[in-house]
Amino acid sequence: MFSQLSIFYGLSFLIAVLAFAFAAYLYLWVKKQRTTNAKIIEVSALIKAGANTFMKREYKILAVFAAVAAVLIFLFLPSPIWTGSALDNLAMALSYLAGTILSAIAGKIGIMVATLANSRAAEGAQHGIKPAFLIGFRGGAVMGLLVVGCSLFGVAAVLMIVGDSSILLGFSFGASSLALFAKAGGGIFTKTADVSADLTGKVELGIPEDDPRNPAVIADNVGDNVGDVAGMGADLFDSNVAAMTSALVIAQSLSGGIYDNVSMVFCYAILGLLASVIGIATARIGRHGNPTRALNSSTYVTTAVFLVLTALATLICRGFSWRIWGASAVGLLVGVIIGITTDYFTDDTKPIVHKVARASGTGPAFTILSGMSYGFISALPAMAGIAVSALVAYQLCAPMGDGYAIFGISMAAVGMLSIVGMIISNDAYGPIVDNARGLAEMGGLGEETIRTADELDSAGNTVKAVTKGFSIGAAGLTVISLLGAFMSEANVALEAAGKPLITGFDIMSPTVFFGVLIGAAIPAVFSAMLILGVDKNAQRMVAEIHRQFNSIKGLREGVKGVKPEYDKCIDIATSGSLRELIPAGLMTIIATVIVGFIGGPLAIGGFLLGNIVSGLLLALLMSNAGGLWDNSKKYIEAGAEGGKGSPAHKAAVIGDTVGDPFKDTAGPSINTQITVVSLVSSLLASVFVAFSFFG
Amino acid sequence: MFSQLSIFYGLSFLIAVLAFAFAAYLYLWVKKQRTTNAKIIEVSALIKAGANTFMKREYKILAVFAAVAAVLIFLFLPSPIWTGSALDNLAMALSYLAGTILSAIAGKIGIMVATLANSRAAEGAQHGIKPAFLIGFRGGAVMGLLVVGCSLFGVAAVLMIVGDSSILLGFSFGASSLALFAKAGGGIFTKTADVSADLTGKVELGIPEDDPRNPAVIADNVGDNVGDVAGMGADLFDSNVAAMTSALVIAQSLSGGIYDNVSMVFCYAILGLLASVIGIATARIGRHGNPTRALNSSTYVTTAVFLVLTALATLICRGFSWRIWGASAVGLLVGVIIGITTDYFTDDTKPIVHKVARASGTGPAFTILSGMSYGFISALPAMAGIAVSALVAYQLCAPMGDGYAIFGISMAAVGMLSIVGMIISNDAYGPIVDNARGLAEMGGLGEETIRTADELDSAGNTVKAVTKGFSIGAAGLTVISLLGAFMSEANVALEAAGKPLITGFDIMSPTVFFGVLIGAAIPAVFSAMLILGVDKNAQRMVAEIHRQFNSIKGLREGVKGVKPEYDKCIDIATSGSLRELIPAGLMTIIATVIVGFIGGPLAIGGFLLGNIVSGLLLALLMSNAGGLWDNSKKYIEAGAEGGKGSPAHKAAVIGDTVGDPFKDTAGPSINTQITVVSLVSSLLASVFVAFSFFG
Repeated sequence: MFSQLSIFYGLSFLIAVLAFAFAAYLYLWVKKQRTTNAKIIEVSALIKAGANTFMKREYKILAVFAAVAAVLIFLFLPSPIWTGSALDNLAMALSYLAGTILSAIAGKIGIMVATLANSRAAEGAQHGIKPAFLIGFRGGAVMGLLVVGCSLFGVAAVLMIVGDSSILLGFSFGASSLALFAKAGGGIFTKTADVSADLTGKVELGIPEDDPRNPAVIADNVGDNVGDVAGMGADLFDSNVAAMTSALVIAQSLSGGIYDNVSMVFCYAILGLLASVIGIATARIGRHGNPTRALNSSTYVTTAVFLVLTALATLICRGFSWRIWGASAVGLLVGVIIGITTDYFTDDTKPIVHKVARASGTGPAFTILSGMSYGFISALPAMAGIAVSALVAYQLCAPMGDGYAIFGISMAAVGMLSIVGMIISNDAYGPIVDNARGLAEMGGLGEETIRTADELDSAGNTVKAVTKGFSIGAAGLTVISLLGAFMSEANVALEAAGKPLITGFDIMSPTVFFGVLIGAAIPAVFSAMLILGVDKNAQRMVAEIHRQFNSIKGLREGVKGVKPEYDKCIDIATSGSLRELIPAGLMTIIATVIVGFIGGPLAIGGFLLGNIVSGLLLALLMSNAGGLWDNSKKYIEAGAEGGKGSPAHKAAVIGDTVGDPFKDTAGPSINTQITVVSLVSSLLASVFVAFSFFG
Repeated sequence: MFSQLSIFYGLSFLIAVLAFAFAAYLYLWVKKQRTTNAKIIEVSALIKAGANTFMKREYKILAVFAAVAAVLIFLFLPSPIWTGSALDNLAMALSYLAGTILSAIAGKIGIMVATLANSRAAEGAQHGIKPAFLIGFRGGAVMGLLVVGCSLFGVAAVLMIVGDSSILLGFSFGASSLALFAKAGGGIFTKTADVSADLTGKVELGIPEDDPRNPAVIADNVGDNVGDVAGMGADLFDSNVAAMTSALVIAQSLSGGIYDNVSMVFCYAILGLLASVIGIATARIGRHGNPTRALNSSTYVTTAVFLVLTALATLICRGFSWRIWGASAVGLLVGVIIGITTDYFTDDTKPIVHKVARASGTGPAFTILSGMSYGFISALPAMAGIAVSALVAYQLCAPMGDGYAIFGISMAAVGMLSIVGMIISNDAYGPIVDNARGLAEMGGLGEETIRTADELDSAGNTVKAVTKGFSIGAAGLTVISLLGAFMSEANVALEAAGKPLITGFDIMSPTVFFGVLIGAAIPAVFSAMLILGVDKNAQRMVAEIHRQFNSIKGLREGVKGVKPEYDKCIDIATSGSLRELIPAGLMTIIATVIVGFIGGPLAIGGFLLGNIVSGLLLALLMSNAGGLWDNSKKYIEAGAEGGKGSPAHKAAVIGDTVGDPFKDTAGPSINTQITVVSLVSSLLASVFVAFSFFG
């Protein structure tokens, strides 16, 4: 029985190493590309230094946080150290630290290559779409390969060494606590800088967006990297690890065929990574090709390869079931469908963007109202897609026996995330070419080059909407299976305590219902705290920018050799974002603990459901409305409804500013918040079983 | 056994008639007050005629809708006419019609007295706060007494005649289908007129808010009456009937002490009405008194009287339980607490309004972002309050036996709504004094009178926020108990079909989960459709206003004797609001039917939960953010942050325009939407049991 699983452990390490090697090759290829323009080299170095400043500060705080968490875990989890075996607690604490460290490494290297690739893509754009596209895409692919490789490697290593999947919850919690810092902290950073730079530069002084006189301009570019590259990578590392972890926890709780099911989880993860490697390696674009089509077609290649390879594996391997294959295929296909509907609501060639642009002609209130309304409507197809895929996966796998139905849902999540390597590559491509566009302008590379960079940037925006819908959908399915994981963890503790087991969470139980209502409010409060954090932090930075313009002589006038103190702005964005993030993160963890102590495991089950439901709704609203406002503004800037400077444009700019923290701070952080809450619940299941007020 | 219940039936009719007599007395008192200013009489007549136009059109469409619904009910409910007894179906259809007719009568009379009271309050304000306050308050009280009297009378009559509480679901559905028209239709009407009048008058032409040259100005005043008086009355009639119905359905399903429990529901409703009568009769204000304090203190009087009277009844009456008394007391107290927290987030003497005003100084995007954020945060205490009251009511009553726990929750809802007569009086006071202020300005009654009217108006705004929080909380508890009512209805059908009964709705069941996710999206889509409806309709009206200014000679210049065609604007608001409302209403009903046919009763249970959870969250967000923006604007207009005309003021006006359809169209309609969906589910329970795909 054991041998098949050992093979898959071996293959996991092998494929992970292959992915690392491929990433190293792409990294060196990007590094080899020429960069000659002195101005570009200078600015690019500033961006790199700024990103490093943020990462160093963030990791320093995170190290303290992780150390405290590791000590707490060592003392209390999986059970208080004085009751259980100290070895288990040590394993949990180390596994937690491994999760944080692997995520940190992937983020760090991703930033390194992104800040290398931006200048090279800018210069590549002088020679046309093709070279610039490849530099941007391959730079992003390094991040994609690293994230998926690290998650596969880490999960396989922890499980092989410890043998107990519940220790993986610690690893997953490590990944998600880092993701909370990276995504929410990076999100506050990037929007603080963006909003402050726009308010002081474009609005007050009337200077261009990327004018080097603006003290916030480097912070703004740094933000793209720390928010969109490192943050997004940590987010998807977290989702991917969480999906695998919950599938493995459930697989180990199944009676019969345990090892085959565990093998299957690894097999699907391996083949997903392999499919992404193939998709990345075959990504091509013609000399005058369409970059959006190139990005999308490599996604479809990856999807097809994954489906074929897993079908082959199901044919060949002992104990692999076609029903499970069906569940993961349904998950993947629904992910693609969610991506397409997201695209419908945010693409500037489709009618919704045009309607919001037209409404802007009546004034900014209508920009906001129509964007919010379509954002609300856009939640329906995505939520229906998740609901239907969970229903189908469950019905497919229920005949296999007790517990298989929920295993089917977790494998739908694994299926949806199987192509995550490709998704990250496409997503990280966006900020690289966005930076490249800015550098091309600052380096004076000419109209033609900027136009090329613009085309690449616009493809990045379109694809970003699709991948965002995808990652929200995947998070939705993952947390459903985490709910299953929580129930098995609670039942282990209940059995040990000799109490009756939980068979489900009935919403007619007021304890469950209590949890649902509180749980539903948490993502709303969490988003609100992050948005208010951006607001407060931007006020600090605006004050600093005013100070510099008033006290540095010649800065306003652009006297040669006079430079603003870029570092000060990066410093404010960094310290402020971490300061604003911590209360929001703590609030969600404390709320979980309070609900658990009041209502016990039943209330927590409801709490997780409430979190998932309102979290999905708000994440979809914020991401889609934000994307919609951004693209409506761009659509007007391209000449519609009176074009740049028209009243419609002014209204659209206000919509875009509202959308910025929606889509880049709060919206994408909700995923992570839900995952953190789910993992905290599973980790503390035994504590809530032992003490609770009404439970 | 029967005699105690008969006494309560008799008392119900007696107290209802007493309330009607008191309302008639107050109506005649208001009518007797002097009105002498010719201009005020003229404008007041125009407002009255406009309101009647809307009501007539609305009731005509509603009559068609109700006739179709009554025929469908007669054919299919409680069971298809060819399977069951035709008499039951006839009773259900007639009971449905009775629900619509009683609600319509209450709305119609409420509008009558409100349009009488506005002009008299305007002239009363010439003699100080005291007479104007009394006219406004007593005008509102007519509506409050009628609504509660009609609901008590109707529920008692239907149950006494038919004897079967499930027929009451038809009555309740009648009330809620009318409420959907009145609240959502009236909400679209009032905001269409408000927004169009502001955009063309204040923004384009720079004429004052209530300038009679503006063709939309009468429509705007009409909107206050049809949206806030008739709409709010129908909404609370619906909530009150739904709370009583669900309590009675559950009381009849309890084994043992059935008649005592039914008696108790009527007893509490009777005492609530009596307490409101006492509260209204004792409402007083000094010559220079504070109207906010006067309104609040009569609410507290009513609350205290209700608690004392129900305690006495529990002492005296056979089979009344202190546990149930406790549950309804908890419901009432939590309602008051929710009102107070709402006040904290929307009162312009409290810090949150000041923060949003300060954020407006940085631009409109920050007005929107901070208002949304605090709106999200404000949902937490209210949702926690509802969660805790449901938990406490359940725990209090669970020891009484099977089914009593959920009966306790329904009695918490009855308790929370017991003082609804007082709540409506306070709420209807608002639009009356708001209109009075406008009339005082148009009638040229002088600075001093306008200042008095302003003070009365501001008290109306403050109290409105409190009553809104209250009515959302009550709706939340009511729909929880409607979930219980749905389960008993489904089980009756399941038992008849010989299928296994439902014992609960487990969220680990993918069928329930499927329902939850779809259900959560529905209030979002519903709100979006209403908001987009206001948007579209306002565009039509703005076009009409432009046409009038361009084609009616002398209108723009204000030549004496030249009048705009007010009717045309009222007509557009009327037909547009009904046209935009119907798709939104149908969407929710069709979604319920689809979910029921796919997943059966289990999916519907989840669907109702999803609806409740996201509906509460969005209703709280929209009502509170809307109130917050409105009051921030008023706070700035009173001189803060640069005062009128400052950039902060411009930003605050944009926030207020976004908030208008939030707080007056979508937010308060969500309650009704949830109730409609809950009742449709209960009515169709047997259909879903008979046919469904996965159920």
